[in-house]
Amino acid sequence: SVRSGRSVGPGEALGVAMSVFVTRRIPAEGLRVLSQASGCRVQQWDSEEPVPRAELLSRVAGTRGLLCLLSDRIDREVLDAAGGCGTPFPLPPSSGPSAQARQRCSCLTGPGLKVISTMSVGFDHLALDEIKKRGIRVGYTPDVLTDATAELSVALLLSACRRLPEAAEQVKSGGWTTWKPLWMCGYGLSDSTVGIIGLGRIGQAVARRLRPFGVKKFLYTGSGPKPESAAEFGAEFVPLTRLAEESDFVVVTCALTPATQGMCNKDFFSRMKKTSVFVNTSRGAVVNQEDLYDALSQGQIAAAGLDVTTPEPLPTDHPLLSLKNCVILPHIGSATYATRSTMAVLAANNLLAGLRGEPMPHELKL
Amino acid sequence: SVRSGRSVGPGEALGVAMSVFVTRRIPAEGLRVLSQASGCRVQQWDSEEPVPRAELLSRVAGTRGLLCLLSDRIDREVLDAAGGCGTPFPLPPSSGPSAQARQRCSCLTGPGLKVISTMSVGFDHLALDEIKKRGIRVGYTPDVLTDATAELSVALLLSACRRLPEAAEQVKSGGWTTWKPLWMCGYGLSDSTVGIIGLGRIGQAVARRLRPFGVKKFLYTGSGPKPESAAEFGAEFVPLTRLAEESDFVVVTCALTPATQGMCNKDFFSRMKKTSVFVNTSRGAVVNQEDLYDALSQGQIAAAGLDVTTPEPLPTDHPLLSLKNCVILPHIGSATYATRSTMAVLAANNLLAGLRGEPMPHELKL
Repeated sequence: SVRSGRSVGPGEALGVAMSVFVTRRIPAEGLRVLSQASGCRVQQWDSEEPVPRAELLSRVAGTRGLLCLLSDRIDREVLDAAGGCGTPFPLPPSSGPSAQARQRCSCLTGPGLKVISTMSVGFDHLALDEIKKRGIRVGYTPDVLTDATAELSVALLLSACRRLPEAAEQVKSGGWTTWKPLWMCGYGLSDSTVGIIGLGRIGQAVARRLRPFGVKKFLYTGSGPKPESAAEFGAEFVPLTRLAEESDFVVVTCALTPATQGMCNKDFFSRMKKTSVFVNTSRGAVVNQEDLYDALSQGQIAAAGLDVTTPEPLPTDHPLLSLKNCVILPHIGSATYATRSTMAVLAANNLLAGLRGEPMPHELKL
Repeated sequence: SVRSGRSVGPGEALGVAMSVFVTRRIPAEGLRVLSQASGCRVQQWDSEEPVPRAELLSRVAGTRGLLCLLSDRIDREVLDAAGGCGTPFPLPPSSGPSAQARQRCSCLTGPGLKVISTMSVGFDHLALDEIKKRGIRVGYTPDVLTDATAELSVALLLSACRRLPEAAEQVKSGGWTTWKPLWMCGYGLSDSTVGIIGLGRIGQAVARRLRPFGVKKFLYTGSGPKPESAAEFGAEFVPLTRLAEESDFVVVTCALTPATQGMCNKDFFSRMKKTSVFVNTSRGAVVNQEDLYDALSQGQIAAAGLDVTTPEPLPTDHPLLSLKNCVILPHIGSATYATRSTMAVLAANNLLAGLRGEPMPHELKL
């Protein structure tokens, strides 16, 4: 029998009807957590590739829990398809008979989507307003990917400022002839000023890693000063314009919000130094890519490193990919085996706790 | 008149005959130091490319000071050509009449090569025994490139372990399709064991930078324990074999000596973990490249990053260049604008101090 809302211990049955849908093949450790929770019926889109939209709309119907990735857009359409709102919902033309049978969800408080657990720290792919309206709880995976993402941010910064891809290419193409005093020189971190946009968990972890490279001064900006976070680095809170003007390195680690969307634009890049390096490991839409292309191609800034783009994947004929001084990675901030496994386990535990009506290890408060 | 051996103050004349030869176009700040020293007659091979051997043999004749790079092999032949030994020296067939006129140097104690100043921290390109025999003093440029080289070592390590070149290539080739939980994953530094071969200036600077990435344990090896250097990192002195077996990351930052030549060989790599990453920013000959190729291609180790190779440049058809899990850079350890400029100034000041018979800022004690 269904026992939603009641707190149960680990391993205790959730009830036969507690079905969850996992939108992708996730690390085995995460799936194991779900499979071993008795009473949890797991459906998984068992593929490296994302679940097609029509499949998502069809499979989400009737599930109590959804474990999704940042590549799944969970909007009103998906929420309606999941049911639990008491209203009819539209079906895609390709839906089969079984989906047709679930065209109308049963009721508002009975079976229906209760928990969305995203295997990501970002949640800009979730329509939070709609989710909140429906009383659905949301879990996410902060903290566990902080180290890996900060590490990747530093890797990208060093790769861009020390020109690694360009230098490695010279080895392959025969451009390397001998040791030369003025060839392939870059700009190092010694005595530099580093500006961090968004001194959150990841921003602080980046600063902590950069400090022993001889950084002279840390600046940061965001929605307001964070004296406690900044104290460790003696970081100074400054307006965005001053951060652009004084930083030798700019690292973007903020969340994507209406306030940060397109924040790094023509005006921003024009204030940066010709010798400065720009790094973004947050979300692509924080950057106006046309303006970044202009700044890089016209030598307004020295180099850039991006782990995130708009759109993702970036089309292979995008102008940014033609630049020697722009390093672009395929959103691998948290891509270590250990981190991805931990993220999957946390996402699974968030989902189970939500289904049990317990406090989640990491719940996004709506 | 020539006033060798007498100590003179800054800016004081060295004597009209104090000619120096600079083997390459060096950063302007360094050449300026030499040009502004009164009585110092500077000849420079004003090119991005190395001076041809025959030219070096010809131009070195009669100079009192030689400012060279690590790409110039300063052996007995060059020293003989420089004169000061009282013996005839062989001339290459291509030598012109002016070289023929200087075929025999004037005397042992009179004009002749007094100082060699190399714009490098390494000195394996210098025939130190022969140089010592002739009473020639040697200057080099340690310390000033420590930060840049340690920075590059970390950049290379992160690039290799987080698979940056491979991931960037996927963006360009269209291999990036969507965010995937198990795609392009690498091995991060969190909770890792890092083994450093040669805990000298650069090795310590690498450890200092890696520590805040969450390294659990540092090991090191070398000619003997260095308790004072190791204390900062709680690093443990271990034999080479144990370092290979227990390290998740091996970083080579030792000097090239008979003891270290070929040290990283089949036996060494076979002891490493399948998930471990190997980084060399010291000298190529410390590594047996055939054995490294086998280890990488057979999956005995996860990845490697090399800033130095044998030979340099590495032939573009070298097997190591065909591997996805091997990042090779063209010896750019110290390649930042600021560092190369500082190195050139230090090399110039070493040379002038040597010509003046003063203590050098950085003399290599022979």
